[in-house]
Amino acid sequence: MSLKEGDFVLLQSSDGKNYLLEIKSQPFHTHKDSIFLGDLVGKNYGDLIWGKRGERFYLLRPSLFDFLMKVERATQIIYPKDIGYILLKLGVGPGKIVLECGCGSGALTLAMAYMVGKEGKVISYEKELKFLEIAKKNLQKVGLLERVIFKNREVRESFDEREVEAVFLDLKEPWILIKAGWEALKPGAPLGIIVPTTNQVSHCLNTLEDYPFVDIEVVELLLRKYKTNPERVRPEDRMIAHTGFLIFAKKVNEK
Amino acid sequence: MSLKEGDFVLLQSSDGKNYLLEIKSQPFHTHKDSIFLGDLVGKNYGDLIWGKRGERFYLLRPSLFDFLMKVERATQIIYPKDIGYILLKLGVGPGKIVLECGCGSGALTLAMAYMVGKEGKVISYEKELKFLEIAKKNLQKVGLLERVIFKNREVRESFDEREVEAVFLDLKEPWILIKAGWEALKPGAPLGIIVPTTNQVSHCLNTLEDYPFVDIEVVELLLRKYKTNPERVRPEDRMIAHTGFLIFAKKVNEK
Amino acid sequence: MSLKEGDFVLLQSSDGKNYLLEIKSQPFHTHKDSIFLGDLVGKNYGDLIWGKRGERFYLLRPSLFDFLMKVERATQIIYPKDIGYILLKLGVGPGKIVLECGCGSGALTLAMAYMVGKEGKVISYEKELKFLEIAKKNLQKVGLLERVIFKNREVRESFDEREVEAVFLDLKEPWILIKAGWEALKPGAPLGIIVPTTNQVSHCLNTLEDYPFVDIEVVELLLRKYKTNPERVRPEDRMIAHTGFLIFAKKVNEK
Amino acid sequence: MSLKEGDFVLLQSSDGKNYLLEIKSQPFHTHKDSIFLGDLVGKNYGDLIWGKRGERFYLLRPSLFDFLMKVERATQIIYPKDIGYILLKLGVGPGKIVLECGCGSGALTLAMAYMVGKEGKVISYEKELKFLEIAKKNLQKVGLLERVIFKNREVRESFDEREVEAVFLDLKEPWILIKAGWEALKPGAPLGIIVPTTNQVSHCLNTLEDYPFVDIEVVELLLRKYKTNPERVRPEDRMIAHTGFLIFAKKVNEK
Repeated sequence: MSLKEGDFVLLQSSDGKNYLLEIKSQPFHTHKDSIFLGDLVGKNYGDLIWGKRGERFYLLRPSLFDFLMKVERATQIIYPKDIGYILLKLGVGPGKIVLECGCGSGALTLAMAYMVGKEGKVISYEKELKFLEIAKKNLQKVGLLERVIFKNREVRESFDEREVEAVFLDLKEPWILIKAGWEALKPGAPLGIIVPTTNQVSHCLNTLEDYPFVDIEVVELLLRKYKTNPERVRPEDRMIAHTGFLIFAKKVNEK
Repeated sequence: MSLKEGDFVLLQSSDGKNYLLEIKSQPFHTHKDSIFLGDLVGKNYGDLIWGKRGERFYLLRPSLFDFLMKVERATQIIYPKDIGYILLKLGVGPGKIVLECGCGSGALTLAMAYMVGKEGKVISYEKELKFLEIAKKNLQKVGLLERVIFKNREVRESFDEREVEAVFLDLKEPWILIKAGWEALKPGAPLGIIVPTTNQVSHCLNTLEDYPFVDIEVVELLLRKYKTNPERVRPEDRMIAHTGFLIFAKKVNEK
Repeated sequence: MSLKEGDFVLLQSSDGKNYLLEIKSQPFHTHKDSIFLGDLVGKNYGDLIWGKRGERFYLLRPSLFDFLMKVERATQIIYPKDIGYILLKLGVGPGKIVLECGCGSGALTLAMAYMVGKEGKVISYEKELKFLEIAKKNLQKVGLLERVIFKNREVRESFDEREVEAVFLDLKEPWILIKAGWEALKPGAPLGIIVPTTNQVSHCLNTLEDYPFVDIEVVELLLRKYKTNPERVRPEDRMIAHTGFLIFAKKVNEK
Repeated sequence: MSLKEGDFVLLQSSDGKNYLLEIKSQPFHTHKDSIFLGDLVGKNYGDLIWGKRGERFYLLRPSLFDFLMKVERATQIIYPKDIGYILLKLGVGPGKIVLECGCGSGALTLAMAYMVGKEGKVISYEKELKFLEIAKKNLQKVGLLERVIFKNREVRESFDEREVEAVFLDLKEPWILIKAGWEALKPGAPLGIIVPTTNQVSHCLNTLEDYPFVDIEVVELLLRKYKTNPERVRPEDRMIAHTGFLIFAKKVNEK
């Protein structure tokens, strides 16, 4: 069970910084110290190792969270606080067939691919080839690429799929695809949307009223981190105050 | 694909209230109207049906979120906003073996059982038989009971398991089991804890310092709902301001 | 310095409920007990007294906060969390002449009247006579009525005043009066607006762009209460999630 | 009414940055441009002026808020969101005599001095001479120094004053002075405390239980700023997540 070439480790330095690394025959440098990644072969997760200049490093097992936070980014990613909630609202789990439009850097794509398992499938539309390539790379890296069908296309009218178990829209004008989302969904199944502005929320809500959708929910999630000194428990000074508004609705057959 | 006896529907009434129901030969009453559940056989998800007194109802497909919100409750449940984040931090997905202590009403248990799939397993310790029975019932209802190994026991020293991929503690004095959690975990794997008070956060952080854990994070998640009138987009007047603080850490082999 | 007829006391019962009362010859009943208010003459602030059925009550000195929370309400009031910030942004203090349009129940009016002192003045426009009467009553009660000039009129074009030191708008379509606000203000002085919806925020921002205003700020304030048990410090379960968005800007002479 | 030497202006540059400046015969430089402050004599608040290199600047009238945000800082200051609420809870207004211990850089001191007017008084204890000097300078600058009695002393047992209308504590171990605060206050009058950590909140609550205080409240205030583009209304990406917890209580004569 010891580490081998190609394994991923989350390297944590003594100042609490994390680096997601693949083990291969090359060096890795932090601002303080360096290690040779090839030397990690034969080590174990959880081990303490020492840098060339005496810095302490831990070899942690990357969790889904770590993979999400460390995807290569070409766009603003959807954050774990939002992804976790989206997965539950959309019921993304083993064996599900789900569709997203606008994969961006692929953080949500990755989380969905992880959760649908080998029997499930994620269909991911993205009009920008450069984003799609980065998303593919991020999925490839964690071995989940085969669970995703990427389609490099701008959808205006309709998705190819029918009877999918969930649809998620992450694009500038998601209202344009609310009808397409309705057509692709199984009856009674959930649609999800993320948008950064309240003007877009308003526009989406307006369009949702025009189609057979019910059970509409608009939420935002705030994540507040705390300092970890047991004698001085308090929130951190600053936080990310906004990522996006999440909109959910369920398809019905008529209205 | 039409509905049959034993299927679950999320019945939504015209005032937006949701009811999670199993289709069987019996009536169901809201404060306004009633339907005979047996009549739903042959209907489809997404259908609009009419109550005996003319009320409109939609037959929605319950998502994981709906099952979580509608578990039978004997205790305060862990909310979806927290569950989603916990699943990502603990990497709970298809094929994983995870352990929790303190299942309460089983909301998190259910979410974990859903995500680990057929190849995964959830081990769940609970000292109170009555909670364990309710959790079992909640799992049974959604057909996920076989993915969970329930243990009705108060753990003081040690869990039976070793090399599990994640441990979650939801009990009054979780610090008592931090050592047991460390022993049960795979090296480099994550531990999660939920506690309602800052005094408990402080106590947990203190104990975590005594064992080989790193990458410690304390967070809280706030879910803010918005009204869905497109002409009057605004947060709802009131919100749940607090459920619990989440603490995460990763096991290392030495400190 | 002992209490006399006409004084106000904040009566606190043992369950933490507060009642703002004027001392006069009449009884007062809570759901648990009763006292005769006339008996408070000769008592002192801070005293513990006993109800007829043995309930403990404290005689507290009402602060501005208490007067604000206990105004008679005909409308949604502006809350102290917002009022405090508004006073600072508008610089409402001793000797200032400030104008508001839409006094509602008069909570902000009261706070402004309190702060401007004997030398200052609050001009308050309100089109609804019934609200104006309630606001007057609330101001009268605390002896601050003479600091306010109430005007029962719907303003469409222009305020009567010029060179006021701050203007605050609390009405459904505040954008209609942004021009009138500009005309009434001293150069460089602040305008404040409160609105509940983001659509209104958007509308106000649009109109502010059309007039010589700069230093525009849009904020919301969230007040989170904590339980007061020292062994179990934690936020309360529920909170008021939304009262309104506050918009501020400063008048300039040209743009 | 035109500007003269010694007046304060809030200079706003075209990128929205604000500078609080006193008019005197000297130059002022931003990173983009410069103006000669002496040239502002004879201008008016609200005027648009041009820098030497063609940059646009507005001459705004500084409000209390601006003076607070621009105090010279030697310590973490108390923020306006907290100050506004503190003033209301403590009833700080014209004619009041209030006491604070720990003036820091004097932001709250300044706000209190502004609000108590010419008839009121602020007594301010500060053990660190360097902080007291900075606070004095900040008060001097806005012409409010004469309303404050500064005392450069570490209080351990007792304040000199009795029958003050409010007491505010801003120091590391405020519990040490809860008894002193009780002695200094008028019966029924409010005590306020600010502390950054929950451990300190717990300690304060514990001590408050030992003295005759009731009506205890612990709160925190969160200020969320929004972007001001009317087509894209949304919270700013980041916010200050924590400044301090505010604790309030009222003195009673016995418990």
